[in-house]
Amino acid sequence: MSVRLVRTQGVTAPEGFRAAGIAAGIKKSGARDLALVFNEGPDYAATGVFTRNQVKAAPVLWTRQVLTTGQLRAVVLNSGGANACTGAPGFQDTHATAEAVAAALSDWGTETGAIEVAVCSTGLIGDRLPMDKVLAGVRDIVHEMAGGLSGGDEAAQAIMTTDTVPKQVALHHPDNWTVGGMAKGAGMLAPSLATMLCVLTTDAVAHAAALDRALRRAAAHTFDRLDIDGCCSTNDTVLLLASGASGITPAQAELDDAVLRACDDLCAQLQADAEGVTKRVTVTVTGARSEEEALLAARAVARDSLVKTAMFGSDPNWGRVVAAVGLAPTTIIDPDRITVSFNGSPVCIGGVGAPGAREVDLSGADIDVIVDLGLGDGLATIRTTDLSHAYVEENSAYSS
Amino acid sequence: MSVRLVRTQGVTAPEGFRAAGIAAGIKKSGARDLALVFNEGPDYAATGVFTRNQVKAAPVLWTRQVLTTGQLRAVVLNSGGANACTGAPGFQDTHATAEAVAAALSDWGTETGAIEVAVCSTGLIGDRLPMDKVLAGVRDIVHEMAGGLSGGDEAAQAIMTTDTVPKQVALHHPDNWTVGGMAKGAGMLAPSLATMLCVLTTDAVAHAAALDRALRRAAAHTFDRLDIDGCCSTNDTVLLLASGASGITPAQAELDDAVLRACDDLCAQLQADAEGVTKRVTVTVTGARSEEEALLAARAVARDSLVKTAMFGSDPNWGRVVAAVGLAPTTIIDPDRITVSFNGSPVCIGGVGAPGAREVDLSGADIDVIVDLGLGDGLATIRTTDLSHAYVEENSAYSS
Repeated sequence: MSVRLVRTQGVTAPEGFRAAGIAAGIKKSGARDLALVFNEGPDYAATGVFTRNQVKAAPVLWTRQVLTTGQLRAVVLNSGGANACTGAPGFQDTHATAEAVAAALSDWGTETGAIEVAVCSTGLIGDRLPMDKVLAGVRDIVHEMAGGLSGGDEAAQAIMTTDTVPKQVALHHPDNWTVGGMAKGAGMLAPSLATMLCVLTTDAVAHAAALDRALRRAAAHTFDRLDIDGCCSTNDTVLLLASGASGITPAQAELDDAVLRACDDLCAQLQADAEGVTKRVTVTVTGARSEEEALLAARAVARDSLVKTAMFGSDPNWGRVVAAVGLAPTTIIDPDRITVSFNGSPVCIGGVGAPGAREVDLSGADIDVIVDLGLGDGLATIRTTDLSHAYVEENSAYSS
Repeated sequence: MSVRLVRTQGVTAPEGFRAAGIAAGIKKSGARDLALVFNEGPDYAATGVFTRNQVKAAPVLWTRQVLTTGQLRAVVLNSGGANACTGAPGFQDTHATAEAVAAALSDWGTETGAIEVAVCSTGLIGDRLPMDKVLAGVRDIVHEMAGGLSGGDEAAQAIMTTDTVPKQVALHHPDNWTVGGMAKGAGMLAPSLATMLCVLTTDAVAHAAALDRALRRAAAHTFDRLDIDGCCSTNDTVLLLASGASGITPAQAELDDAVLRACDDLCAQLQADAEGVTKRVTVTVTGARSEEEALLAARAVARDSLVKTAMFGSDPNWGRVVAAVGLAPTTIIDPDRITVSFNGSPVCIGGVGAPGAREVDLSGADIDVIVDLGLGDGLATIRTTDLSHAYVEENSAYSS
């Protein structure tokens, strides 16, 4: 029997987790804006990876700090405000939120300290959160927590900002343990300014160190290689919590693989719902002198505005791909060895246009760009999207 | 009496230069597409700076090679095709073009070798040039060369691609020597894929080494700091030719200053006519630990798609500026010391939003962004534009 992957349930798919998502009034729209993921145990091992932006939001600073214990009981997440660039008062707001979650969980019957509560926020940078609404919401949400379908669904909805659909995954291992997850936003990790938040849960038995290895490896090959617009939020956070409720201790390789697959699927969902997306573009660079150089070249192509606008226009303008590769930082190339294909059709061979290159059909929603540098066996893939009118529209009118 | 700067005449403003621009049939539209700039002497000193893209078009490879002599008699430029990614046959086309110019000038009465002829091309990457039309045009254009107003004007028109207006400058020094110039395209040097070509002329007496110093210094502070979309053409070229016809030998500092001012003015013209521009945006970073770090941070802000779309929307979304600075490569920051202003109004002070920040009026065509990192005295400015619907439109339908 093989691993089974579905896109329902999400964080409450593994045993030992409850979740909820409510409308606390943080968003003016009245949509759900506060989520809680609660680990019932018996284990509380946890790890996280965070934005590489030097400007880190208060919840990132807080959560990085509490995770030094390798343990979490709960994660509280809000949309409707990033709580970034809010100074010491903003950090106090995050701390107060964690304290309020701990107090509410303790009142509810599970003795919890603030140091066991991670906080994630997403939304506009620079404004304080409406703390009266956040704190009232925290008191309410504890009573809404549910396992099974509804808890995960509602939590996944509550963390959406410009997302048009919630993103969830559940990966059931034949040995009777599960990895679940939810995510919002789109970008790389550090992902896009449309903050990427992701909470993964598992009922496997695993130490924090094992979780950490699995998560870092998975993030490096999934979220780190999703690059919508090269921008990187102050708030990006991916957390992995293990309840141990299945009683099963998977081998590290099995855990690595399950977490990788869950992250990979969430990445595909983020790409498909990225801001203004009309094309899902995959840029693969092969034949580089190393994986690192392949990655830099693939990222350079994936970030190039002229490549991305050509993709929007279904225009097989391969010269822009070659020019973007030629500018990739610290990647050495030999222009006469570059070969490029679009959706399997060669468009440039040995640095020169291939016959029929201008007629390749890119009108479909998926575009596969492969660049072979012809220098070695380094290989890497970046997922991105086109640069469309809708992207410009959405991002020129976000805060106003 | 001070230096006088006008935006007419261009390359034929200095004594000793003739120019022409004709329609040779390279562009399907029938617009002018072939330009010639001819140095009548008595001196022929010349220098150039070129794209940093590892993928270099045939004319760049050719011109870099002929400039090792430090001398040029003529520059032939075509729009309607970049002659990039065209392999050895494309290089032979460039060579044949230089030979044809040399032969035509020799027939006309000025003994010239191909090694004295620079070639520049701009247009779509990847297609061979229609050499029958190029060579016939070269034979014709020699007879069209004129000094004064019309020659420079027509040459400036003939190098346009997506430019909507020709760009020219003439800087008259009170000591009776002049620097002239024309440019097309928009981007950084290495500038944007809308190839940047620029030919500067002077009737000053100056050795190639003196020209080289003046041009490198000027380019580093002007074209190098114009960044429309972070893309960099395979063809970007800036040339400076000196005829010595004025008989005046300016001091190096005077030459440096005149070339810098001519380049700076052409840069302002390129920025104002960049693809899809609705806002002229200037990003200045001060208080960095070095000029280099200031430049990296300013470039990171100027290239950020979310900053640029916010500018298009006249949206004072300063959080995106701070986040972009936080991602600038190798620039160390202290988030709590960052201060940002838009058009002179503080929007972020010490990493936290300033009162009234969301109400700053950015509805005008010029937006001045100043970021003070508060760490040192490093300072640099990048000129850029917004990211508009028109940019997406123009670049999604260029080759097709």
